[in-house]
Amino acid sequence: MAAYPDFPPRLLRGYSAFRENRLPHESARYRILAEAGQRPRTMLVGCCDSRAAPETIFDAAPGELFVIRNVANLVPPYDPDGEYHGTSAAIEFGVMGLKVRYILVMGHGRCGGVQAYMASRDAPEGADLGSGAFIGKWISLIAPAEQLVCEDPVDAAERQRALEFASVRQSIENLRTFPSIKNLEEIGEIELHGAWFDISTGELHVLDHETGHFNIAAP
Amino acid sequence: MAAYPDFPPRLLRGYSAFRENRLPHESARYRILAEAGQRPRTMLVGCCDSRAAPETIFDAAPGELFVIRNVANLVPPYDPDGEYHGTSAAIEFGVMGLKVRYILVMGHGRCGGVQAYMASRDAPEGADLGSGAFIGKWISLIAPAEQLVCEDPVDAAERQRALEFASVRQSIENLRTFPSIKNLEEIGEIELHGAWFDISTGELHVLDHETGHFNIAAP
Amino acid sequence: MAAYPDFPPRLLRGYSAFRENRLPHESARYRILAEAGQRPRTMLVGCCDSRAAPETIFDAAPGELFVIRNVANLVPPYDPDGEYHGTSAAIEFGVMGLKVRYILVMGHGRCGGVQAYMASRDAPEGADLGSGAFIGKWISLIAPAEQLVCEDPVDAAERQRALEFASVRQSIENLRTFPSIKNLEEIGEIELHGAWFDISTGELHVLDHETGHFNIAAP
Amino acid sequence: MAAYPDFPPRLLRGYSAFRENRLPHESARYRILAEAGQRPRTMLVGCCDSRAAPETIFDAAPGELFVIRNVANLVPPYDPDGEYHGTSAAIEFGVMGLKVRYILVMGHGRCGGVQAYMASRDAPEGADLGSGAFIGKWISLIAPAEQLVCEDPVDAAERQRALEFASVRQSIENLRTFPSIKNLEEIGEIELHGAWFDISTGELHVLDHETGHFNIAAP
Repeated sequence: MAAYPDFPPRLLRGYSAFRENRLPHESARYRILAEAGQRPRTMLVGCCDSRAAPETIFDAAPGELFVIRNVANLVPPYDPDGEYHGTSAAIEFGVMGLKVRYILVMGHGRCGGVQAYMASRDAPEGADLGSGAFIGKWISLIAPAEQLVCEDPVDAAERQRALEFASVRQSIENLRTFPSIKNLEEIGEIELHGAWFDISTGELHVLDHETGHFNIAAP
Repeated sequence: MAAYPDFPPRLLRGYSAFRENRLPHESARYRILAEAGQRPRTMLVGCCDSRAAPETIFDAAPGELFVIRNVANLVPPYDPDGEYHGTSAAIEFGVMGLKVRYILVMGHGRCGGVQAYMASRDAPEGADLGSGAFIGKWISLIAPAEQLVCEDPVDAAERQRALEFASVRQSIENLRTFPSIKNLEEIGEIELHGAWFDISTGELHVLDHETGHFNIAAP
Repeated sequence: MAAYPDFPPRLLRGYSAFRENRLPHESARYRILAEAGQRPRTMLVGCCDSRAAPETIFDAAPGELFVIRNVANLVPPYDPDGEYHGTSAAIEFGVMGLKVRYILVMGHGRCGGVQAYMASRDAPEGADLGSGAFIGKWISLIAPAEQLVCEDPVDAAERQRALEFASVRQSIENLRTFPSIKNLEEIGEIELHGAWFDISTGELHVLDHETGHFNIAAP
Repeated sequence: MAAYPDFPPRLLRGYSAFRENRLPHESARYRILAEAGQRPRTMLVGCCDSRAAPETIFDAAPGELFVIRNVANLVPPYDPDGEYHGTSAAIEFGVMGLKVRYILVMGHGRCGGVQAYMASRDAPEGADLGSGAFIGKWISLIAPAEQLVCEDPVDAAERQRALEFASVRQSIENLRTFPSIKNLEEIGEIELHGAWFDISTGELHVLDHETGHFNIAAP
């Protein structure tokens, strides 16, 4: 395939900037964590969305965040049926292999996955994305979250945000269907957290476990 | 659960740093891409590993990279069987919904997923991680890549790296089992690329489509 | 704006190909029609869609087709209210200024404008495109065409195609609300035609004025 | 209307040539882009003029150019007044729906729309085309461009060309009155370009953003 195009120039330029500006300050960190192995304390389940990059939002250094990213930051319920479960495998890897202490499910505003779920629910035929081979099934994982909406939305944008919040609550519930996570949480060895990133303002909202509401984080 | 611990302090501190240092320069970008919707040109399939953060390595601004992260940056073969396929759903979302132009599979050195695959292959009984409910099945996706090893490794570390390279090649082959990707690549509307990040040195290697080898990127 | 990017390379390459391959055969035609003025006999109302280029489909030489392209190839009804009417102005220009003989309204399959109309009709809130400042209003011009559907569609794809056909019929009706066109058609000086291009197969369907149906054109 | 004439024979012959000569080489492209949806990277605002066909000049394959064509390739200023705005709706569709990266306004020589504007300005009473219901109003959009003439024309032909150039500049300014375009250009996600096609020689001139002049493109 001789004529295959070169590596995307924008990515090469970005890599150059990383080599020049950031790597010099973190090369020891990379080298040491290569030799010693990674030991992140936080596992983060986030969305693939290009506007919600966990390492950016939490200013994370190499080695700090073990990150799973799928459409709509969903955790499926525990289902050891012998099939491929990429997200569950990664959760298992983080909990059992890396012994993380925190699991954070981070949603975000204007999530295309939640939007596609709402569109396919409201008008199944017209739903473009929901009609593909995989997206429709995947985002059907959001459905149970409708029971966990606890805001009182008045317009479409608010309804979507309320469902984005509820979906984080649901994913946390689903994490607790993993026996190891449930057990480790009960004895205080693992903490489950929720957050929601406002991609418009850059504000983080964190889940208050007592009230179930999301409040703006006080930096 | 009144006594539930607070949000992890390290994450709050990182978020504070983001608010103070980076957000002021990028708030317009966040706001604009919230209103106009994301329009990333690159979809990246990376590993959950905390030392291989795509936005860091490519110095990416918000909105640039649509990122899927699972254990060992694997793309399963196309299999529309009606089950949950998180990675395939995200790929579908990027290709059909966001119309990305580039798909980059990025592996990295000392990958725990590849290591676990090799351990469970060589000594099935002693393999700790492979015995869980999900990881063993998931990393079995690496097996076909053994046919695509084209280096000639002499020690264990080299063997692992050769398999990390081969696994990227295999994932690119698997991307081509998605009919839409195969078709769009054929007419030049999508490009598939491979890379491998050396977490020890911070060097990026990119796949040469002609030779099949990975060469250090010239920044 | 010193750092403004260069002209898109792909367009420059295409222009080079035009200069090398096609222009040499048509330079006399360009020069003569520059001096004498254009004298196209056909005015075509088509869609902006990148897959339905009139000059390509009709292998047209320079000077042959006077082409209006808007979303969903719509002709609004005659409405001389003193406001800006780009499509009506262009129709007036073709009929009065260029004295075209044929007016062809050409629809096409999988039209995003028709799809957006159907989506916003079926689920107003979820309709992304219909919620912009202009698209929703513009595609509401399709609504009267629902009365002109004469196929009997069974699934969503067929319903959309039936509406694409009907919308061509409606635009032809709307052309007849222009007094000059109505008059000129009555005395046989202008002919109105309809067509629909199957972007998937490259087949053209033409409107049979007697039956109202669209039949595959026999090349 | 039994005696209604057949489909124009010249168009059928052209369609036959397309089926025989071009379609065989591009049928895969049509089929694939029908299934996957269009993904053009360039939106082009051109004139209806039969001698300035964008796909011809840029040797464009199906799927490459999203094309708006109106009289004199004009972009009206942003005006969300709830009325029908065909050009603005198409621009919105390209920017928000298709997420195009480039917007090119392409003028051309001996433009009938610019000529009509100059005629109606210089001798309102004698201006034939300007007296219709729609053209006069539409081409009044050219008026502000008179301020942007930066050549120093000596004869009538040069005056018209200078105004054709200025009108492209003005349309680019008007594109920037669309909030989404202004914003996306500011963060580098959209580029605005200008060009002018010499219908007499087949030469393309491109707008230099630094100097404001149009220079012959070096193929």
